Amino acid sequence: MAKDGKHRKHEIWNADAADVRESLRVPGGERIELAAYDARATPSGPQDKEAGLEATAVMAEHLADLQERLFAASTAGDRRRILLVLQGMDTSGKGGTVKHVIGLFNPSACRIKAFKAPTPEELAQHFLWRVWKPLPFPGELGIFDRSHYEDVLAAGVRKIVPRREIERRYDEINQFEKSLTDDGVTLIKCFLHISYGEQRRRLLDRLDRPDKHWKFNPGDIDDRALWPAYQKAYEKVLDRCPTPHAPWHLIPADRKWYRNWAISRLLLEHLEALDPQYPKAQFDAAEYRERLLKQS
Amino acid sequence: MAKDGKHRKHEIWNADAADVRESLRVPGGERIELAAYDARATPSGPQDKEAGLEATAVMAEHLADLQERLFAASTAGDRRRILLVLQGMDTSGKGGTVKHVIGLFNPSACRIKAFKAPTPEELAQHFLWRVWKPLPFPGELGIFDRSHYEDVLAAGVRKIVPRREIERRYDEINQFEKSLTDDGVTLIKCFLHISYGEQRRRLLDRLDRPDKHWKFNPGDIDDRALWPAYQKAYEKVLDRCPTPHAPWHLIPADRKWYRNWAISRLLLEHLEALDPQYPKAQFDAAEYRERLLKQS
Repeated sequence: MAKDGKHRKHEIWNADAADVRESLRVPGGERIELAAYDARATPSGPQDKEAGLEATAVMAEHLADLQERLFAASTAGDRRRILLVLQGMDTSGKGGTVKHVIGLFNPSACRIKAFKAPTPEELAQHFLWRVWKPLPFPGELGIFDRSHYEDVLAAGVRKIVPRREIERRYDEINQFEKSLTDDGVTLIKCFLHISYGEQRRRLLDRLDRPDKHWKFNPGDIDDRALWPAYQKAYEKVLDRCPTPHAPWHLIPADRKWYRNWAISRLLLEHLEALDPQYPKAQFDAAEYRERLLKQS
Repeated sequence: MAKDGKHRKHEIWNADAADVRESLRVPGGERIELAAYDARATPSGPQDKEAGLEATAVMAEHLADLQERLFAASTAGDRRRILLVLQGMDTSGKGGTVKHVIGLFNPSACRIKAFKAPTPEELAQHFLWRVWKPLPFPGELGIFDRSHYEDVLAAGVRKIVPRREIERRYDEINQFEKSLTDDGVTLIKCFLHISYGEQRRRLLDRLDRPDKHWKFNPGDIDDRALWPAYQKAYEKVLDRCPTPHAPWHLIPADRKWYRNWAISRLLLEHLEALDPQYPKAQFDAAEYRERLLKQS
């Protein structure tokens, strides 16, 4: 579609979709043009900040309840677990999502992994090697802040890995993710889409506020010069790697409140679809009740 | 003191202490009698549930702010980190503390480890072997739900390890913890003290509510028969293992709101004492500001 200059703007984001999973889902199998998508958009759900914050807060109890059920089910052998994959340019709000969205959950059943540049040990292995260990266990909510997708994004843009190798990696990623979903992992992949202008505002904020200097990495300025290449690399990922078992979601992320609402809502819809149940007791409660009362 | 039947009840808990660190601190070096301590007590701070919930909620923002500063400092080489050790009988509220107190923090800088019965691999190693890996990194808040103390508690009560070996372990634990605190770890060790009657109420609750059956472990009833032995084992720990660098705190835990308040308050006091600061920029903000503005 991008070839002939047409934008898929309203073909992906669909306010009439049944839910956010559907309204933000990237179809895959064709090249979309990210620049055509307004990162300040609010494709469905609340339309202003006040309503967004309210709608997100209202979800908190429901999310925590479903999370507890998912974990409870795992104690009786239910292998289901969730993996939220967060990708996006610097300052797109991956860390903010963990703080504000994952902060709504019970931390004891969250497994968070922030991927950094690979170590020499990790580079000596297949690129998927380091991704296996931090996967969530049954009943858990796993969160990847960056992920194996950096191995086709940064690795390609910085020309660390040849193009042919990158091509192979898309398929390997799809197969890897299929193995996970076949084994009970619900994959929720989110691309936090910010605009070039919004990134500038956020970088300036980090430079202007001494309490945010620690978040500023001088290398971010150099990476910003690679913005077009990164956007193309993301477009390629959003073409090649949405699969029926593991779709990508295009999250408009210039507005933090909307990003938080949309990802909370995505998690809620997936948890509701899993419909986890408290397990039936494998013991006779009446018998133990009696034993307990005899003891004291 | 326990020898001659005297209780140290008001000698440990001290409402006039400067702070909760002091008012709940176990002196160590002598045997206290746990049964003499009212697990429903509210030795300092709020005296009723409403005030307790309010006082805890009020701390949330301050805790999150200090946590961010601690993490920010680590990005500039500050090695300081916190390790909260939670111990207590079944149902004493270790999991509830993680949910309600650790839930106040940014999950991305929390490292939570729940220790279970050791695996065969872990048993083949020194008992401290498995404790090293889940330690918090600089800037992080580590949480141990159970810990290396199980290796002198359960291991002794269930007679898995001979008495002489247990004796040696107290010293090894003290040395281990000294190594950690010398390296920048602030250790906050909390014994969640519940009464025998409260444990019965909580176990009955788990038996009576189908949505809590998954939390009930039939083995808990057998463990409960070992209550006196466990209390003695804890008394021994609270005699041998409070050190100047790593004191123990006796948290009255029959009232959940008080437990949550006290541990939140302990974390706050320790964080305030650390007084972490946002690091000074190692770069010229004005220069990067200019470069950024030129780019777009």
